Amino acid sequence: MDKKVKINAAIIIIGNEILSGRTKDTNTSTLAIWLNSIGVKVEEVRVIPDEENIIVQNLNLLRSIYDYVFTTGGIGPTHDDITAQSVSKAFGIKYQIHKEAFKILETYYKPGEFTLGRQKMAWMPENAKLILNPTSGAPGFNVKNVFSLPGVPSILKSMLGGLKNDIVGGEPIKSLTISLRTVESEIASSLTKVQNNNKDVEIGSYPFFHAGKLGVSIVIRSEDQTKINNCNSEILEFVKLKEIEIVER
Amino acid sequence: MDKKVKINAAIIIIGNEILSGRTKDTNTSTLAIWLNSIGVKVEEVRVIPDEENIIVQNLNLLRSIYDYVFTTGGIGPTHDDITAQSVSKAFGIKYQIHKEAFKILETYYKPGEFTLGRQKMAWMPENAKLILNPTSGAPGFNVKNVFSLPGVPSILKSMLGGLKNDIVGGEPIKSLTISLRTVESEIASSLTKVQNNNKDVEIGSYPFFHAGKLGVSIVIRSEDQTKINNCNSEILEFVKLKEIEIVER
Repeated sequence: MDKKVKINAAIIIIGNEILSGRTKDTNTSTLAIWLNSIGVKVEEVRVIPDEENIIVQNLNLLRSIYDYVFTTGGIGPTHDDITAQSVSKAFGIKYQIHKEAFKILETYYKPGEFTLGRQKMAWMPENAKLILNPTSGAPGFNVKNVFSLPGVPSILKSMLGGLKNDIVGGEPIKSLTISLRTVESEIASSLTKVQNNNKDVEIGSYPFFHAGKLGVSIVIRSEDQTKINNCNSEILEFVKLKEIEIVER
Repeated sequence: MDKKVKINAAIIIIGNEILSGRTKDTNTSTLAIWLNSIGVKVEEVRVIPDEENIIVQNLNLLRSIYDYVFTTGGIGPTHDDITAQSVSKAFGIKYQIHKEAFKILETYYKPGEFTLGRQKMAWMPENAKLILNPTSGAPGFNVKNVFSLPGVPSILKSMLGGLKNDIVGGEPIKSLTISLRTVESEIASSLTKVQNNNKDVEIGSYPFFHAGKLGVSIVIRSEDQTKINNCNSEILEFVKLKEIEIVER
């Protein structure tokens, strides 16, 4: 049971707008939830600026450590969109017009509207595999274990379905949340015991404030439903003993 | 003018709940906006799991690269709160009960309620400088250029005011946003020219969808208001020429 293959991933968020605080990143959550569902665990996220040498360095490091690397952002038509050229450089592949992408974009725009500015979105690492974009035409691309997606959350979301066949995951990562009307310090020692009894299960404890009331959500995560159920039973045991109320969230 | 000292920072988000996608990080945005206002630029963010060796490695690397490092998360009372012990280990400092933190927490809780579980929040790197917590008692802490804050966004926010005297920033980073009723490819080449004319100013272009309409926000960022104004004029020039509508956002 414990010898299941674990598949992991890193996400590189390319975007000055996240580093400046102007925009809050939501793509990590979208990607992580989707990856969990196909058995890939996100183990690291880096937010880095729109600078080629920094993107190249991080790409080359993370793609050597993790099974998959996802980048978000920087694949549009403007001067600050440098993901495609950076991925090309990281892999030492030519950065040039991708014929298939060019055709897709040419068809997407009305005649005469496929301007030079828009043609920039067809420049990609040579022979990259396209990631189709059902929302706004411009495709993402995939080179080896690196997948480059756009930064606009709704567009990114719409492209994930097309990726399923290219990513081989392990056992889907399941989770169970138990929300309690308590504070963390009330349950800390009991929860430590449960964690010690179940070392290979990820047990997180997260305080929340909801409708003016304090509470704690305990999140149990594992590929193995039986292990989740065991932890759940152990937790419900001390919850009952301590007469803690279980709440919906 | 260009010889102004630039002060930078990295943020380490310690939290399996962000990596699993369950929680969306908003602390980066809060911290980055606040840091910009005191002249500190966030240049990198890493989201890493609640694992001591990974926290220690990242801390030791990033604190040697950046002027300041901020950690968020992992300073509560439960088994998955291991930031304080990790910071101690990273600096090679004893991890022990911090007398001042102990006193604060002892006073904060009602008699008899300062349990062993809660006392864990007084365990810190020896002689760490406390970061006071006006919201929920448990202080954060500061060792050299590393500042450890909680993960709960409202609590983190309430603690920033108390940090002002400990962080020496440069010139505040100012920004100006121009929102246009256009698409990126319409303005890409003109904007590239403006960027080339103003190489040390950060110009970002961000498409938006608002109230069913497409638009692009151009964000100009610099420590130098004159440079921002110059870029603004150049942008308004091509906006006028192209007869693009300027919109409020």
